[in-house]
Formats: sequence, C-alpha cells, structure tokens
Amino acid sequence: MKIRRADRLVDMTNYLLERPRKLVSLTHFAERYDSAKSSISEDLTILKRTFQERGIGLLETLPGAAGGARFTPYMTREDAAEFIDELVEEVSDGTRVLPGGYVFLSDLLGRPEILRRVGRLIATQYLNDNIDAVMTAATKGVPVAQAVAEELNVPFVIVRNDSKITEGPTMSVNYLTGSSKRVEKMELSRRSLPTGSSVLVVDDFMKAGGTIKGMMSLVGEFEGTVVGAAVFAEGLVSERVVTKYTSLIQVDTLTSDGEGITVAPGNYETEIFGE
Amino acid sequence: MKIRRADRLVDMTNYLLERPRKLVSLTHFAERYDSAKSSISEDLTILKRTFQERGIGLLETLPGAAGGARFTPYMTREDAAEFIDELVEEVSDGTRVLPGGYVFLSDLLGRPEILRRVGRLIATQYLNDNIDAVMTAATKGVPVAQAVAEELNVPFVIVRNDSKITEGPTMSVNYLTGSSKRVEKMELSRRSLPTGSSVLVVDDFMKAGGTIKGMMSLVGEFEGTVVGAAVFAEGLVSERVVTKYTSLIQVDTLTSDGEGITVAPGNYETEIFGE
Repeated sequence: MKIRRADRLVDMTNYLLERPRKLVSLTHFAERYDSAKSSISEDLTILKRTFQERGIGLLETLPGAAGGARFTPYMTREDAAEFIDELVEEVSDGTRVLPGGYVFLSDLLGRPEILRRVGRLIATQYLNDNIDAVMTAATKGVPVAQAVAEELNVPFVIVRNDSKITEGPTMSVNYLTGSSKRVEKMELSRRSLPTGSSVLVVDDFMKAGGTIKGMMSLVGEFEGTVVGAAVFAEGLVSERVVTKYTSLIQVDTLTSDGEGITVAPGNYETEIFGE
Repeated sequence: MKIRRADRLVDMTNYLLERPRKLVSLTHFAERYDSAKSSISEDLTILKRTFQERGIGLLETLPGAAGGARFTPYMTREDAAEFIDELVEEVSDGTRVLPGGYVFLSDLLGRPEILRRVGRLIATQYLNDNIDAVMTAATKGVPVAQAVAEELNVPFVIVRNDSKITEGPTMSVNYLTGSSKRVEKMELSRRSLPTGSSVLVVDDFMKAGGTIKGMMSLVGEFEGTVVGAAVFAEGLVSERVVTKYTSLIQVDTLTSDGEGITVAPGNYETEIFGE
C-alpha cells in the first residue's frame, strides 16, 4: 500500500532520529513506503529544511542510485549558550557544596532532559570526526558517556577501579590521581573495546585530570587513538595534567566557609564556536 | 511566519519524541507554528495514525481549550518478540561464559541501539503507571536505568555499595546477597530521591534477587512505593528472594564444563502480553 506524504514525513523523521550518523538508502525508504525514489527525495528536502531551521541537526542527502540520507544531530550556538546558562544557574546553589569542597551533581546527571542535551552538545563538537567508541570511568561518568554515545550512535565502555568477575580478562594501567598524587589502577574489559579504536574520553567532573589522563593511556594500551576529552564540569585547580579538553561548566567552591560556590561557563563555547 | 503542514509534521514529530509522557498544549503548538488550532489538531491526527501504524507509540489527544497531546512510546508485541529473539541469539555464545559461571554482557549494555530498545520494552510494561523515578545499583545497572528513564522521561537514581564523598548525606540499608548469604550495605544519596516517590527498580542481571530486594527496602526507607522490578537478564537459581519481577532473557551456564550456555526468553512476554 502506497503511503501518503504526510505519513511518510512523520515516520521518516522518527526513523532517522533513531539512527544518528547512519546512512539510510533511498531504496530502503522507497520500499518501506512503496513510493518512488523521486518522492522520497522530495520528502528528504523537507526534512532537511526543517531540521536546519529548527536546529535539530544536519541531514545530508547523497544523490544517485547508491544515495541515501544521513542525519547528524547537533546543537546550534544559540541553543548551546542557553543550555550552558541554564546549567550554570542550576549548579549555582550553595547547598550543593559538600564537606571538602565537593559538589553534588548526581541529580542533574540523572535527569534525561539534561543528559540528552549534554550528549547533544558534546557530540556537536565532534560533528566531523570519526569516533568508534566513548570511554568513561565508573560510576558517575556513565550517564554522560551513554548520552554522548547515543548521539554519536557508537558503543560506550566503562573503565573501573575495581576488577569485577563479570568483566572477564581486563587490560589495566596505573595512574596518578592529580590532586592527591596517589597511584591508582584502572581496568577495562579486554572484550569491550576493539584494538585500534578511535576513542572519545568523557567524564562528569575533572579536577587536575588524573582520571582523564589515565583513560588516555588506557586507550594507548588498546592501540587506539584519543579523539578528544570532554567533561561536564571542571573544578578550579592550580595545575592540570591534561591540557586539551572541553568543559560545559566551571565550578569553584570556597571551602573556607564551606558554603560558597561560583559557577561559570566552561571553555566549550570558546573552543567550539570561537570568541 | 506561517509554517507549512509538511514542516510542522516533521518538527512536531521531533518535538513530541523528545518529550515522552509530557502533555504539550495545542496553544503551544499553535504559537510555535503561527497556525490555527484546527490545523494543529489535523496534524496530530496524522501523527497519531502513523505512530500507531508503525508501532512507535501512543499519541493521546485531549480536546478542548485546555487540550493537547501526550506521546507515550511503546513497543508492539511483534517487535518485542523479535527483539528478545535477537537478544537470545546474541547472548547464546559460549565465549561469553566466564569462570564461576558468570556471563559477559557489558558489550550489549554499551550499545545505544540495544539500550534504546531495552528501555522501550521495559517502559511498555508500565504504560499506564505513574512512575516518579527509576532506581538501579552501580555500576552495571546504570545503562539499563538510564535507558528506561529516558523512555519514561523521569530521573534515575544510583544505589552504591561504597559511599562516595560526592554524594552528600546518604540513607543506607543492609541486605543479604541472595547467592552467597553475605550481609552487605547499600546506600543512596538522600538528596537524589524525594520522599514518597513511586519507584521502578531495574538491574542488568538478577540471580537470587538480593540486590533487587535490598533496593526495594531502600525505597521503603524513603517512604516510597515500589511500582515494579525489571531486569535485563535472570540467571537460573533454585531459590529466589524476589517473586514479582520481569526479565527479558534467562541465562543458564553449565559451570561444570565452563563453556556451555543456554539462553531463553525471560518471563517478559508472558507477563506483559499473556500466553
């Protein structure tokens, strides 16, 4: 049964949104809707226009017999700035400061509507990069990694401090925690990550960057390439062991009175969109 | 500027898909597209029809001045059965069996296209329930919880065995691990979960069910209500401490020869769709 254009547009939108960065052939759509390829091409023009006007993402259409469409979600600079401002406001709350100057963020990183945009924002940064996997450290980096992996449509892998019997053979590295200068160990299941992968490293919070640096060296052990490092929040420290990274927000706690917190946009906007 | 129907349909589909279970008013759409409410109503009829025909989800339209639309994603029985068969096949692989009869599943639970469907499937089960939060245990339950929380559009919270300084005040319970009969402790940040919440408990793997039972008692400490318990996979055990739960797959490893694995659909289909 031939499908009306209106119905095709709705289903095609859902179909492409569920498959970021995958090329879907014209033939596939033509068969799915029992429609001519020329009609499908017209549909894709409408989708492309609306995706662009609404800041949903990029729809690339490849012409010809082997042609098709590939949807890459992104966030516009305007939406990015607005979202980062929203995060700054949410985190600027003295009751988030914990003893030792730590900041409570678990509520934010457990809210789907926040995570979706965190993932979208970080993925935007790697719009033109080839990424095979996202890597993070257990436990609190996981939601960020999953959100980014969904937008990139690639697997994510979880590095752990404690080896679990359900992970099988692991590869491990020792790393120096940046702030306390302790030597610790992190491990990744051998089977999680194919050798030679291009990896994006993400985490929820970075201080001196010891964990990020550890993950980077783990990527090396898997003979992979680090495409970049991105964190949700960075703390203010005097010295960092990682220099190339992006952060969405920057958090400074005044441990002297145990209450004060100063939050500002991280380096994301400047790094990605320029001054 | 008035927006054409075709463009409205594309944007409206994206808008509703990003906001599961939220009521979006007709007025909101009418303003967003500078279009008459009668046109918006016609658009919603098209969306509703396509969402149903394609098994994307339920679009409820509420008529009248205070009316609007609410999208609830679901999976049809046919798609559910097909997905569960796919999981059974993926897991039926002797190389997944680890010493002690454990099963390696981290690769599957790190793939967005699998997680999206796991989340959709578990959320389908609670189509008509009011759920305030999803709860899981660190670390491997997190991807399942996040996937389910996205479909339900509610926050998820992570219970841990080790208290972290970044969690602030916690509530803890002791629980008996089902298999080894050890007493352990699990904790949840006090601030993560509002008192009196309706909670769905999820995990990646359940053997005797000690962790699930522990989480249920933790919900009780927060004066909440357990709406249900759902796991990705269940192992075969002689005795269980949790009786009401659903599982997508059932895994039996033959530890005697250390290689064999038998995988079957879990109780999901029977429990949800009937025999």
